[in-house]
Amino acid sequence: MATSDDSSTAIGALMAAEVDEQPAVWAEILDNGMSEIAAIAAAIEARQPRFVMLVARGTSDHAALYAKYLVEMLLGLPAGLASPSSVTVYGTRPDLRDVLLVGISQSGGSTDLVTTMAVGRAQGALTLAITNSPGSALDAAAELNLSLHAGTERAVAATKSYTAQLLTLYLLLDRMRGGDGAEARELPALGGEVLGAGLRVRDLAARYRFAQRLVVTGRGLSYPTAREAALKLMETSYVAAQAFSGADLLHGPMAMVDAQIPVLIVLSEGAGGRALAPVVPRLHEAGADVMCVGTSQAVAAATVGIALPAGVPELLSPLVEIIPFQQLALHIAVARGVDPDAPRGLQKVTRTV
Amino acid sequence: MATSDDSSTAIGALMAAEVDEQPAVWAEILDNGMSEIAAIAAAIEARQPRFVMLVARGTSDHAALYAKYLVEMLLGLPAGLASPSSVTVYGTRPDLRDVLLVGISQSGGSTDLVTTMAVGRAQGALTLAITNSPGSALDAAAELNLSLHAGTERAVAATKSYTAQLLTLYLLLDRMRGGDGAEARELPALGGEVLGAGLRVRDLAARYRFAQRLVVTGRGLSYPTAREAALKLMETSYVAAQAFSGADLLHGPMAMVDAQIPVLIVLSEGAGGRALAPVVPRLHEAGADVMCVGTSQAVAAATVGIALPAGVPELLSPLVEIIPFQQLALHIAVARGVDPDAPRGLQKVTRTV
Repeated sequence: MATSDDSSTAIGALMAAEVDEQPAVWAEILDNGMSEIAAIAAAIEARQPRFVMLVARGTSDHAALYAKYLVEMLLGLPAGLASPSSVTVYGTRPDLRDVLLVGISQSGGSTDLVTTMAVGRAQGALTLAITNSPGSALDAAAELNLSLHAGTERAVAATKSYTAQLLTLYLLLDRMRGGDGAEARELPALGGEVLGAGLRVRDLAARYRFAQRLVVTGRGLSYPTAREAALKLMETSYVAAQAFSGADLLHGPMAMVDAQIPVLIVLSEGAGGRALAPVVPRLHEAGADVMCVGTSQAVAAATVGIALPAGVPELLSPLVEIIPFQQLALHIAVARGVDPDAPRGLQKVTRTV
Repeated sequence: MATSDDSSTAIGALMAAEVDEQPAVWAEILDNGMSEIAAIAAAIEARQPRFVMLVARGTSDHAALYAKYLVEMLLGLPAGLASPSSVTVYGTRPDLRDVLLVGISQSGGSTDLVTTMAVGRAQGALTLAITNSPGSALDAAAELNLSLHAGTERAVAATKSYTAQLLTLYLLLDRMRGGDGAEARELPALGGEVLGAGLRVRDLAARYRFAQRLVVTGRGLSYPTAREAALKLMETSYVAAQAFSGADLLHGPMAMVDAQIPVLIVLSEGAGGRALAPVVPRLHEAGADVMCVGTSQAVAAATVGIALPAGVPELLSPLVEIIPFQQLALHIAVARGVDPDAPRGLQKVTRTV
């Protein structure tokens, strides 16, 4: 039997392969990306930015949200997410002296990000593009470039480029505060352990095959995970997945939680998990069916769940937390007969202005 | 027949009364709030902030998002939304010199906002609390205070305090760039016109009585409207309403749009509406049922809709755009036999840490 370039033509094969590839991508970054990261860190430090703005869309925007927390935690600088439409739709030209503007994109091709970066540079910002496509338009628009080392991403649903973004951002910011990335060394092994629970996730997917809506919640560093999990579920399984921080959930959306709506929670070791913990009894009171990805204690208290290995450094938890959700999105889509590699209405590179 | 202090005990009476009260609240701000606003504008200008951070939760966070656009458009300063958990969960202490930190809250009582404001002040930020509760804990934590003049808000679902926040923020920023609020003068009359379409909205509500999920989309200044519309629908009608900017919708969530899911769009006069326009044919191609609140041309091109009066100044559109959605949330809830004044699982003041 002839085989094509594709390793398999099974539905979801591209996405499945890229989910599995993640620990190898992380190892590649740790082995061969550090000198590039150190050089960019030094270039940024030389300019002493006082404020950090991040700009991205879709999955990359969740990496930006993760970086926003890290900038405040590791560098002690205020950080914000830029709205591209401020520049592209309304033509604003804010004064960006002393600002580091970081654009994050898998393809580096989205027009609104390129414009935002070019305008930011003209307005005095130090600009850094982080893409998986060296030489992209976003790279050309920025003064500094950092590549993701994730290899070509072929699945429409971004997976390996997302965790490559998280790791690259972590290593860059860790370096800027004088770190050497030592905390990240065990990540490929930890990621491999999490991938090993894939069959259990496939079984869990059956539980959500007929769900029309889902709520995903996490707090702090796990909030980007909740957002990204919801996006994966929307774009592959077409389920109405809504992400809320544990705090925002209590400011309104909690009203719609009942026994009819599955709730997925991310509750890892560390301060974010501890801050989410008081929300869990509220969910149970509302009769919710709770699936947990997180510590083994949190999984034991939930209806069902996937326990993460102990000892994942808190700041790096988002890399391993997202894996079971990527697998869940894939398996729900397959169970529904939908090909997650060919979601209706989407292309790999999204062009928005 | 004896009447109680309540004007009515019908379900949703509190929310209905406060929705209707909005033009009077706006007139009160325009008539009696301008000198307080001018004084705060002068106090801020004297300190020449270079960056603006906004912090809020729930409905107030949508007012903060509106203000983020306005800060960039009217003042030419970069602006970002702060994540309270950065301070309250992770204990970050960023360097906030030259930062204006604005806390927005109806009650002024949410612990995480109070802590964020107190820490921001200690870290060198100029702090401003905007609340509807003079003397609140948030006011006490901030150097500058601005009150909303909205009167006591009794309904759990915030309505009049939201548009009072929008108007107050607009007038403050307009004043800082030398304006006198003249563009806002016609707002109470325009708001009254929009309220007049309430019966048509009630009829439209029947269309969504059995909907389990909805998508709401807008671009630029109308994106906060989409977010707030979705929150009202979630907290009163328990429908899974998801808001996306028109651009983010194309980065993934578009995949789940089909004939089974109602899409509500906000398409007003101005650049935001023009930027959203290309998304509309994509929605029709996907077979979506599109309800439009916006220009009469946009309504004519949609499946159903509510036309807004012509001549609403672009920057102030969010005040009038939200009214039909507030009415829609109310009427869907009532049609479902749910009291929007007593949503399950919610209190008026949400305490999160």
